[in-house]
Amino acid sequence: MSAKPSDLAYVPFVSVENMMRLIHRIGIEEMLKGIADYIEQDFRRWELFDKTPRVASHSEEGVIELMPTSDGEVYGFKYVNGHPKNTKEGRQTVTAFGLLADVGNGYPVLLSEMTVLTALRTAATSALVARYLAPKGADTMALIGNGAQSEFQALAFRAICGVTRLRLYDIDPAATQKAMRNLETQGFDLTACASAQEAMEGAQIVTTCTADKQYATILTDNMVGAGIHINAIGGDCPGKTELHKDILSRSDVFVEYPAQTRIEGEIQQMPDDFPVTEMWQVIAGSAPGRRSETQITLFDGVGFATEDFSALRYVRDQLDGTGLFQQLDLLADPDDPRDLFGMLERAAI
Amino acid sequence: MSAKPSDLAYVPFVSVENMMRLIHRIGIEEMLKGIADYIEQDFRRWELFDKTPRVASHSEEGVIELMPTSDGEVYGFKYVNGHPKNTKEGRQTVTAFGLLADVGNGYPVLLSEMTVLTALRTAATSALVARYLAPKGADTMALIGNGAQSEFQALAFRAICGVTRLRLYDIDPAATQKAMRNLETQGFDLTACASAQEAMEGAQIVTTCTADKQYATILTDNMVGAGIHINAIGGDCPGKTELHKDILSRSDVFVEYPAQTRIEGEIQQMPDDFPVTEMWQVIAGSAPGRRSETQITLFDGVGFATEDFSALRYVRDQLDGTGLFQQLDLLADPDDPRDLFGMLERAAI
Repeated sequence: MSAKPSDLAYVPFVSVENMMRLIHRIGIEEMLKGIADYIEQDFRRWELFDKTPRVASHSEEGVIELMPTSDGEVYGFKYVNGHPKNTKEGRQTVTAFGLLADVGNGYPVLLSEMTVLTALRTAATSALVARYLAPKGADTMALIGNGAQSEFQALAFRAICGVTRLRLYDIDPAATQKAMRNLETQGFDLTACASAQEAMEGAQIVTTCTADKQYATILTDNMVGAGIHINAIGGDCPGKTELHKDILSRSDVFVEYPAQTRIEGEIQQMPDDFPVTEMWQVIAGSAPGRRSETQITLFDGVGFATEDFSALRYVRDQLDGTGLFQQLDLLADPDDPRDLFGMLERAAI
Repeated sequence: MSAKPSDLAYVPFVSVENMMRLIHRIGIEEMLKGIADYIEQDFRRWELFDKTPRVASHSEEGVIELMPTSDGEVYGFKYVNGHPKNTKEGRQTVTAFGLLADVGNGYPVLLSEMTVLTALRTAATSALVARYLAPKGADTMALIGNGAQSEFQALAFRAICGVTRLRLYDIDPAATQKAMRNLETQGFDLTACASAQEAMEGAQIVTTCTADKQYATILTDNMVGAGIHINAIGGDCPGKTELHKDILSRSDVFVEYPAQTRIEGEIQQMPDDFPVTEMWQVIAGSAPGRRSETQITLFDGVGFATEDFSALRYVRDQLDGTGLFQQLDLLADPDDPRDLFGMLERAAI
C-alpha cells in the first residue's frame, strides 16, 4: 500500500510557458493552419456535438463564463473571463483555461492554459471562415482594432487565406504602433492608417476586433463597398457591437451558433428572425457561401465552445514526445475506489 | 522585457497529495467542523448567491457536470463526473476539482482537487443539517451503504452531532468490512449488521449512501419508526433513488435547492408540488426544523454548488503559510495587456 498516486491520478497540464514553447516548436502559422483544420473537421460533424449557450455569470465589472461541449467521446469546457477594466491594473481583459475529459469515464485528460490558445483559435476560425467567404484573390485586409488579437488575425489570414497586405487602424495610435512593431519583421506589406475609412481603401477583407464593452460604430454604412468580406469579431457580448445596423441589412450574415450570436453578436441589433447562415452548413456544403462578386459577406464571430474543443484536441494531439507539459496530481486514485478514507489515512503515515 | 511570468500569472493549486496533508495537519474532525461552519455561513447568506442548477452532460456511461455559483465577490465552480461502472476498471465513480476566482477581475485565485474535498463537504453538510433536524441527544446512527463516503459521514456526525454508536450495513459484506477496518481505531462503538432493518434498531439517525444508478429501495416504509432523522444522500441524479415513496409521504422533507432536488433527489418520485422546506431557511431561522419528537425528518441531500464554494473558501483560508500548494502558470500575463503577441515572440528568444 502506497500513498503515492498511480498514473490514473495524473492529468497533463500545459502552462502558458509550455504553450508558448509548443507554438514556437511547431511554428505559429503552421499551428494556426493545424488548429483551423481541426475546427473545420469539427464543423463538418457539427450535428454530433452537445451544444449549449455559454453559462455566464455577469457582474458590474465583467463576466465569467463556462463553455462546455462534447462530441460523445470527448468532453471539453473553457473557463473564460471578460473584464474590460482589467488593462488599467496591468491585467488581461480576457484570460482562459480549458479542459478535455473522457466521456466514457469522466476523467480529465488535458488541462491547458487558453489565453494564448484562444488568441490562436479565434484567428484560425476567422481565417477559416474567410477562406469560404472572402472574394477570390483577396490579398489586402483592413485591420481595425490593433489590440491583443490583431497580430494573430494577420498571421492566420496569411497562412490560411493568402493575405499579404495589411492596413492598420486603431483609435489609439499607440496600439497601431505596437502592432506595426510586432508585424514589421513578419514579411507583410504594412500601412498604418489615420482612420477606419483610410484603412479600408483597397481592402477586400476588413477585420474589426476592438475591445470596448459598449455599442460602438467602428464601421458606418457608407464605408462598406460591394464585394467585401467583413470579419467582425469584437462584438462578442450583450451590449457590445461594432457595426452600424445598416451594414447588417446589406450583408449576408454568417454565424457560428445562432442561439448564442443573437444574444452576443452584431445581430443583437436586429430582429430575432433576422436571417443568418450557419457556418457549419457552408463548410459541410449544405448551404452556399459567397455567391457573387458584389455580395457583402459578414462573419459575425463571437467564439463558440466547439472551436475551443478543436483547439484543445489539436494541442493534445501534438504533446506526445514534446515534454511540454507537467503531470498534475488532480485526481484522487485509491487502490480500492471504495476506500477513499483508507487512502487518506495511509497518507498520514 | 522578460518572458518569465509575473506573480499575476500564477494560480495556487492544491493537489490530492497536498489536500491530504492539509487534512492531517488540521485534523479531519476539526476540518469537517470548519467546513460545516463555512457552509452554515453561506446558507445564512443564501439569497446573495447566483444559483443555477448544475450544467450536466449526460452519456450512456455517466455524467460530467459543472456547478458554478457566485456570492458577488467570489466566483466558484466544480467539475465533477459520475460514472458508476468506473470501479470495475479501478477508477473512482466520482472525481472532482474546483476553482475560485475574483469576480472583480475574473482571475482564478485557487485551483484544487475536490475528490477528497467533496467527500468532506458532503459529510459536513449532512452533519450540519442533522444538527438542526435530528432528535435531541441522538447518539446512534445506522450507516447503510459502506462505500467511499461512509467513513466521512461517521466522523462528521461525531464531530458535529455527537454520534458515537454506528450500525453498519451494505449489500456487499466486503464494503462493511472495509468501513469497520477503517473506523475501528477511531473510537466508535461499532456494530456490523446483516440487514438494513437490523442496522436501524435503536438508531435515531439513519444515513443512506449507496451508489447504484437506478431506482432502489434501500429503506421500505415499515422500517422507519417515528421520530428518526433520515439523511438520504445516495440518490443524487435522475433515475437514482434509495427510499420508498411512502417514506417521503410520512416525512417532512428538507432540501438544498428545490429546482435541483426535484430532478435529482428522492423527491423526483413525488409530484412537482410536493412540499419541501429549504435548509437555508431553517439555518437562517425563517422556517422551522424539527418540531416534535415523533416527526420524521428527511434530508434529501444531492449536493449543491454553494457547499463546494464554502469548502473551497475554507481551504483557501487555511493555505497561508502551509506551503501545501504549487504555483501554476495558468494565466498569460504580458507586460502590456494588449501585447500578447509580443510576449509570445519574446518567449522564443
